[in-house]
Amino acid sequence: MDAAPSERTRVKRYNWLAKYDEATIHSILDAMPLCHVSYVHEGMPVVTPTLQWREGNRIFWHGSSASRMIRSTQSSKVCLCVSIFDGLVLARSAYNYNINHRSVMIFGEAEKVSDGEKQDHLKKFVNGVIPGQWDRLRPVTEQELKATTLMSMPISEASAKVRVGQPEDDEEDYSFPVWAGFIPVHFGIGEPVADPRNLDGVEMPADILKFKIG
Amino acid sequence: MDAAPSERTRVKRYNWLAKYDEATIHSILDAMPLCHVSYVHEGMPVVTPTLQWREGNRIFWHGSSASRMIRSTQSSKVCLCVSIFDGLVLARSAYNYNINHRSVMIFGEAEKVSDGEKQDHLKKFVNGVIPGQWDRLRPVTEQELKATTLMSMPISEASAKVRVGQPEDDEEDYSFPVWAGFIPVHFGIGEPVADPRNLDGVEMPADILKFKIG
Repeated sequence: MDAAPSERTRVKRYNWLAKYDEATIHSILDAMPLCHVSYVHEGMPVVTPTLQWREGNRIFWHGSSASRMIRSTQSSKVCLCVSIFDGLVLARSAYNYNINHRSVMIFGEAEKVSDGEKQDHLKKFVNGVIPGQWDRLRPVTEQELKATTLMSMPISEASAKVRVGQPEDDEEDYSFPVWAGFIPVHFGIGEPVADPRNLDGVEMPADILKFKIG
Repeated sequence: MDAAPSERTRVKRYNWLAKYDEATIHSILDAMPLCHVSYVHEGMPVVTPTLQWREGNRIFWHGSSASRMIRSTQSSKVCLCVSIFDGLVLARSAYNYNINHRSVMIFGEAEKVSDGEKQDHLKKFVNGVIPGQWDRLRPVTEQELKATTLMSMPISEASAKVRVGQPEDDEEDYSFPVWAGFIPVHFGIGEPVADPRNLDGVEMPADILKFKIG
């Protein structure tokens, strides 16, 4: 898909960085569970950071059933954004400063996932972060499922922006004697730190080392 | 300040992680230029990722004067969020999974910075990222200043959330035989990559190595 799916998803600023294809959008969502969900609460804009995951061409997020974010997004219009900071672009002019980044913006109406389907989706979320982890955990209770609301929407009205590499300076600025380039930024994953309250003899599953973001 | 400055900034979920003091809020804003600005555009919520910086107890961000974000936030209510992903918390139950994080949420009405003041604030922004860089760059033009709009608001109606360390499991779950702990996440800053179009003899300023986020 080369064209924006709707006028409001059409990227206007730095529009040459825009991508509308599913593969790009999915890869960005899969690389970063942290998202920002924007909604209108009592007439005011609110943005709440939370975790998202993807199943096929749908995006899911969850929260406390009693939270403002969950109460305000249910069957309501939302705009959800995932952004990854990949580097600082040092151009020859302040105007052409930028960051290398990957971002996705999705518009839609948030749908509440039915009670019967919640557990299956939560399992996919947990196992998507650490393979096989769901079955290792203390089983989820009815009360916990009740206290958790899952929201979902199709990834249909979505756009991505991807910027990599060197500055794009004005042609006449390339003769200006200043150092230009970029500073790469990445997510570093540290060594897992065991809880001192772990039971004796409980080993860390190797899957824990598969966690990555960015 | 121990109390929330307003009801809508009072943290309700995981309220024991809430911080309302200026030092905590400022330190999070200073650690992460990427922010998410939420606003209402034609009755719909929109969230736009952009860069922010702080001067005293005010927050600033900028954009193309013609952009939806700038046109929609001017003299309008906004909610701005800065979030830093510090780690994955592997609890003993899915319900107690979490991420270690630092986040700030600010409510306010975005004010447009006057034309005469723009350049001074942009200089502070550029030099805040790389010390002394503004004076090394090709000087800003009147046209560039005109194409750029700066927005600002006081950091008065703000809250922070900070989570560190090990899981907080239900007391009875500590006897469940699963490995628990956390995986630290940090921003890694790579070696600067020089633009192949840099002029011969142009050296990288040592200040470039001072860049850091997170």
